[in-house]
Amino acid sequence: MFQAVKHPFLVPFDGSFQVEKAPTTPAARPLSKKAYKQQRSEMIARLDDLQRLLYAHDRFSLLLIFQAMDAAGKDSTIRSVMRGIDPAGCQVYSFKQPSKEELDHDFLWRTVCRLPERGRIGIFNRSYYEEVLVIRVHPDILKQQKLPYAPPGEEIWSDRFESINTLEKHLARNGTIILKFWLNVSREEQRKRFLSRIEEPEKNWKFSTSDVQEREFWPQYMNAYQEALSTTSKPWAPWYAIPADDKRAMRLMVGDLIIRSLSSLGLQYPEVSSQEAKALRKAGVKLTQEK
Amino acid sequence: MFQAVKHPFLVPFDGSFQVEKAPTTPAARPLSKKAYKQQRSEMIARLDDLQRLLYAHDRFSLLLIFQAMDAAGKDSTIRSVMRGIDPAGCQVYSFKQPSKEELDHDFLWRTVCRLPERGRIGIFNRSYYEEVLVIRVHPDILKQQKLPYAPPGEEIWSDRFESINTLEKHLARNGTIILKFWLNVSREEQRKRFLSRIEEPEKNWKFSTSDVQEREFWPQYMNAYQEALSTTSKPWAPWYAIPADDKRAMRLMVGDLIIRSLSSLGLQYPEVSSQEAKALRKAGVKLTQEK
Repeated sequence: MFQAVKHPFLVPFDGSFQVEKAPTTPAARPLSKKAYKQQRSEMIARLDDLQRLLYAHDRFSLLLIFQAMDAAGKDSTIRSVMRGIDPAGCQVYSFKQPSKEELDHDFLWRTVCRLPERGRIGIFNRSYYEEVLVIRVHPDILKQQKLPYAPPGEEIWSDRFESINTLEKHLARNGTIILKFWLNVSREEQRKRFLSRIEEPEKNWKFSTSDVQEREFWPQYMNAYQEALSTTSKPWAPWYAIPADDKRAMRLMVGDLIIRSLSSLGLQYPEVSSQEAKALRKAGVKLTQEK
Repeated sequence: MFQAVKHPFLVPFDGSFQVEKAPTTPAARPLSKKAYKQQRSEMIARLDDLQRLLYAHDRFSLLLIFQAMDAAGKDSTIRSVMRGIDPAGCQVYSFKQPSKEELDHDFLWRTVCRLPERGRIGIFNRSYYEEVLVIRVHPDILKQQKLPYAPPGEEIWSDRFESINTLEKHLARNGTIILKFWLNVSREEQRKRFLSRIEEPEKNWKFSTSDVQEREFWPQYMNAYQEALSTTSKPWAPWYAIPADDKRAMRLMVGDLIIRSLSSLGLQYPEVSSQEAKALRKAGVKLTQEK
């Protein structure tokens, strides 16, 4: 089974993760724009190679899960890291409020139906983790979920963690490489980014006044993230708590982790058997002789 | 969580189930055609009532899984037990050989995507259990499954049982009532039914010569059923090993188990609040006064 690659921001598997000790800025000095662009284009070229290999090997799929507070940079990270990838081999799903049909199923269903096929990359911009994050901060939402044994008690959260952990273990055993990124933005940095969304007209569309209300629940969200990440970071489905105040460093770190994780699989182009090689040569001769 | 209703043919939860001790004929004398028709129409009426209630209550879904050797009567049981049900509240999926797209996902995926919505009945004619039955008898099929860690060792079967058990527990917690029926036909009865499929022209289409080949693997199938049923029969997702040599008795038993299981949920039509009742009366007055 897949084993998480080591990294300073890997969430440990022993439940000891503490949000307040997780840095929101990286240790290294900010990169110049030039150095960033150089590193980014190297990263994109490498990801493109690996995605072709993943596709040709056709045994594994890659699932990338992004979770974060508003304005942490989920969308822009997905855009900048994955832009060099062949779109035929990659699908992004942004999970918003569930539809009526989705609520008519268990809380994992809508995401499971959108899992990537072998050889492909699936990106979840938000995911089933919302069910233990936003819903935990606002448990009133549970009332809309038509749960069978209502009202649910506190055990609903441990039940959900168990469901998530067993699903991810099943997927990992069957060939899905799962990498989970929490883009860890500071409250102060979020404030600045919200202000720029208000002040710059072309960013207005990204801002809703309810975003400011949600910000009031910051401590509750941090508690929910801490429990979710420490309970569900596993060797076969690791969480990385990536400092998000420096966008350039964050994007390069995410790209680097994807590259190192895929490289660890030892993917190879399928070998051609001697019989197939013979048939290929024969086809080549036929094509050459065609008038 | 749902608790299986007791029954002489409930597969015990302690792993002690033995195929060779499971009867293929019921203890009771065969029913006359008249008595059968009478009991069947009572059963259908009761199921129809319960399905409406399930739909109105809108919290639970019902998943019925049918597995059996060829000619045990899966299709005809589904047809006779469920024929009185509103088709809008019931969907049957027959799982044949997986498609290329389905093989590009984990082995549970194609069935999970077809799970019934709240308020509805989903019937799986064959299911993910094929993955620990026919594939276990013919492990060569695994080569077509593009498994990531090939060739798999013996642990693949216990891994699959774990995946199935954790999926079913998750579904049960979230409102899916799961009832699993193994229609237990004897080898001799299968022989008779195959012969009638060969001898009666209008039954020829149901017979394939490969069915006779498959019959050669009877002991291997019985071992696979024994392990699958004893490992995955749980209070929240019980197996019933229904004697299948007497079709009438089998159908009535299946119907009875569905009725008793749904009845145990204490389903009720949603109550109308006093506010809603007031609004209803107002609408009634308006309709009455309409010219």
